[in-house]
Amino acid sequence: MSPQDYRLTLHGMSGSGNCYKPALLMRQLGLPYQWVEVDILKGGSRTPDFLARNPNGKVPLLEITDGGDSRALAESNAMLCYLAEGTLYLPEDRWPRAQAMQWLFFEQYSHEPYVATVRFWVKYMNKRQEWQDKIAEATKKGYAALGVMEQQLSRTPFLAGPRYTIADIALYAYTHVAHEGDYSLERFPAVRDWLARVEDQPGFVPMPEATASA
Amino acid sequence: MSPQDYRLTLHGMSGSGNCYKPALLMRQLGLPYQWVEVDILKGGSRTPDFLARNPNGKVPLLEITDGGDSRALAESNAMLCYLAEGTLYLPEDRWPRAQAMQWLFFEQYSHEPYVATVRFWVKYMNKRQEWQDKIAEATKKGYAALGVMEQQLSRTPFLAGPRYTIADIALYAYTHVAHEGDYSLERFPAVRDWLARVEDQPGFVPMPEATASA
Repeated sequence: MSPQDYRLTLHGMSGSGNCYKPALLMRQLGLPYQWVEVDILKGGSRTPDFLARNPNGKVPLLEITDGGDSRALAESNAMLCYLAEGTLYLPEDRWPRAQAMQWLFFEQYSHEPYVATVRFWVKYMNKRQEWQDKIAEATKKGYAALGVMEQQLSRTPFLAGPRYTIADIALYAYTHVAHEGDYSLERFPAVRDWLARVEDQPGFVPMPEATASA
Repeated sequence: MSPQDYRLTLHGMSGSGNCYKPALLMRQLGLPYQWVEVDILKGGSRTPDFLARNPNGKVPLLEITDGGDSRALAESNAMLCYLAEGTLYLPEDRWPRAQAMQWLFFEQYSHEPYVATVRFWVKYMNKRQEWQDKIAEATKKGYAALGVMEQQLSRTPFLAGPRYTIADIALYAYTHVAHEGDYSLERFPAVRDWLARVEDQPGFVPMPEATASA
């Protein structure tokens, strides 16, 4: 099979941390891919065509064309696992791998719904005043998640231990723009140092600016 | 190393689907483990001792004692990955594995926060009347998640394809008790048939009844 037979297409929205995750990893792995911009604020992930590919109606969506075969994978962290398998970004050894997985699920359950969501409400939906109470409640949980990261990063340079893994990519995605949801990282020096370490990784590229308008 | 050197202890709450997931898998794998009951309604996952083992203050927590070494793993779905690695419950092939992972993240992001949470509010917190609006909003999203499952299960017998995997364990955990959060599965025949198929799997054990009082 020639390499041309295997093509990766990432449907995503610029400015979305979830969409940035697989994009960053593909850059770090040197995997070429095509980016297709989807404006979710204008219903781009809810069209019949999009829903046929991802019934959950969410970006990112990774389309994998392999010879004549085309498949679509949803869930940003599942993409990280898929793309990183067999590389240093997803440890082979059982315990470091378990820890990386733990942080990936932590990110989707305890971090993203608060850190990313508050940013979305404030930056994209302009709800800072209107949803004050809702934002205060979510922000408390977001700070709790940052506190859990702070504890780990006070002990190890990266989340799953001594090495940079997809767990760091997953949690970098929204932590580095937490301030856009009015979070302050002042009380989290280990998190701040870790952000800098992630940005120092070979092949690191910053998250593209949002192009969609609120 | 003798098998006695490797011990598994699961800290969990009876009646919690998240805690049931690794328990069910360990039974199906024939792995002996010790169960330690934690009453989260009485702050059992917030004691200094518990927080030292899991700073995120959540059950389940899997303690793995290996020789003199003791380690704790959080996140139910990370436990499923850890325990299932190298077995038929987590496919080795790249594409079925990617699909299993996709459903595991879907469960934690799009299903559990609505299906499990509404059940918790109704069954454990007795908030059916008081939180009516909040429950209605969450229930809509829970039904959307069940609809996504219905589409997949109309096409394949199990979530990740032809075979039972940890994706089915993860989504069975709260789907089979969705009615305790006032969900009806009437519009989801493929989901109902799939619940029966899961219950037919070798080594299947039902979820233990809740012992904690609301």
